[in-house]
Amino acid sequence: MAAAAPPPPPAPVPEPSMTLEDTDSRNHPLFSRIRLATPADVPHIHKLIHQMAVFEKLTHLFSATESSLAATLFNSPPFTSFTVLLLEVSPSPFAPFHSPSSSSPSPYSPVDRVVYLDLPLDDPDRETFASDETHDVTVAGFVLFFPNYSTFLAKPGFYIEDIFVRECYRRKGFGRILLSAVAKQAVKMGYGRVEWIVLDWNVNAIKFYEEMGAKVLSEWRICRLTGDALDAYGNANI
Amino acid sequence: MAAAAPPPPPAPVPEPSMTLEDTDSRNHPLFSRIRLATPADVPHIHKLIHQMAVFEKLTHLFSATESSLAATLFNSPPFTSFTVLLLEVSPSPFAPFHSPSSSSPSPYSPVDRVVYLDLPLDDPDRETFASDETHDVTVAGFVLFFPNYSTFLAKPGFYIEDIFVRECYRRKGFGRILLSAVAKQAVKMGYGRVEWIVLDWNVNAIKFYEEMGAKVLSEWRICRLTGDALDAYGNANI
Repeated sequence: MAAAAPPPPPAPVPEPSMTLEDTDSRNHPLFSRIRLATPADVPHIHKLIHQMAVFEKLTHLFSATESSLAATLFNSPPFTSFTVLLLEVSPSPFAPFHSPSSSSPSPYSPVDRVVYLDLPLDDPDRETFASDETHDVTVAGFVLFFPNYSTFLAKPGFYIEDIFVRECYRRKGFGRILLSAVAKQAVKMGYGRVEWIVLDWNVNAIKFYEEMGAKVLSEWRICRLTGDALDAYGNANI
Repeated sequence: MAAAAPPPPPAPVPEPSMTLEDTDSRNHPLFSRIRLATPADVPHIHKLIHQMAVFEKLTHLFSATESSLAATLFNSPPFTSFTVLLLEVSPSPFAPFHSPSSSSPSPYSPVDRVVYLDLPLDDPDRETFASDETHDVTVAGFVLFFPNYSTFLAKPGFYIEDIFVRECYRRKGFGRILLSAVAKQAVKMGYGRVEWIVLDWNVNAIKFYEEMGAKVLSEWRICRLTGDALDAYGNANI
């Protein structure tokens, strides 16, 4: 897609200092985990991107297939190129994470968070997005990002191409959790920036991003060379 | 730096069909070559980036050093991550390019072009930017770019972070030659887009880019999380 789908402002994630009374009043815990996606997740990633295209009324620009995604993602170690983190949710706590191989530790330790809801959540697409039926785990969103570079800082950063949370999971803090996961990874790697784009009329998203600490660069515009105009350079004598 | 330094509109590059009379009227040929940069070029790249910071009045944001550039560039094969193409010029024709190793062909064949000038060019920084004194070759500019990704296309593209031509070489078509080199490489690799950013008040640059076939995405704004606001995520419990 063209850019990061702006998540709506999230509900606050309960603070560790929240009182028992507060917790009791929102007594439907929803357990969430952010983990690295793998090639086995491509069917879910494809459906999430399509939902994003529908949300943005841009399905006419959507041409990704499961096979084209599989061919272009996962060709490099995580964080060195195009990287997908998946958001999964479950009514039950997730099992502790163990690196698949003890000799080569995982490049990413999943982020586990619990959000407390007033009412149990009804997910109409739960079967479509089931990722571990035995443990009632469902894919709820994703973030796709990759390294960019600042020559002034002489440091890499991350550019977030997409951040998307499925409709029934919005306004619960998951957008914030996904964005924070990328920011934390950037800090861990000593990177200098995290960047993404937003539609100028999407004031809710802009407010949310500013509350997350981001600045909106008001003067800069994106230039894009694509389609026939790009293809013409294949044979141009310039 | 923050973004692509917009080159001014270039003078037209002579067409192959140009008549002898046209050529005679601009009888100072300047030979140019675009080639992949190597670690040996870091001192020149550092100086070019600093000149760009001066040009943009952003030297207060400039913290790159030769060693920080050397540590962060050239860690991956060309075009798979941060990639620098250098523009070199010479009053004499360049020697034919031979791949350094016949067993592993070069990933990039240099682009040679000749521009014809009305007057000989006076480069006040010629010694500083000399890259091959034996053959009177001088570094005149560079472009730094890296892969990005479109989930709608399920295809990589290229993002141009910087495109810069030294002052005395501007308005001669070199910006166009550098941008075209990236576009040609994108087409060669089957990529879907080339993108970069421009300041909204820089109408000359926007006109130039539109003439190159680019569209300006007027509604999108860049969000940036950096400095202390980014560092705060290192320990945040989100």
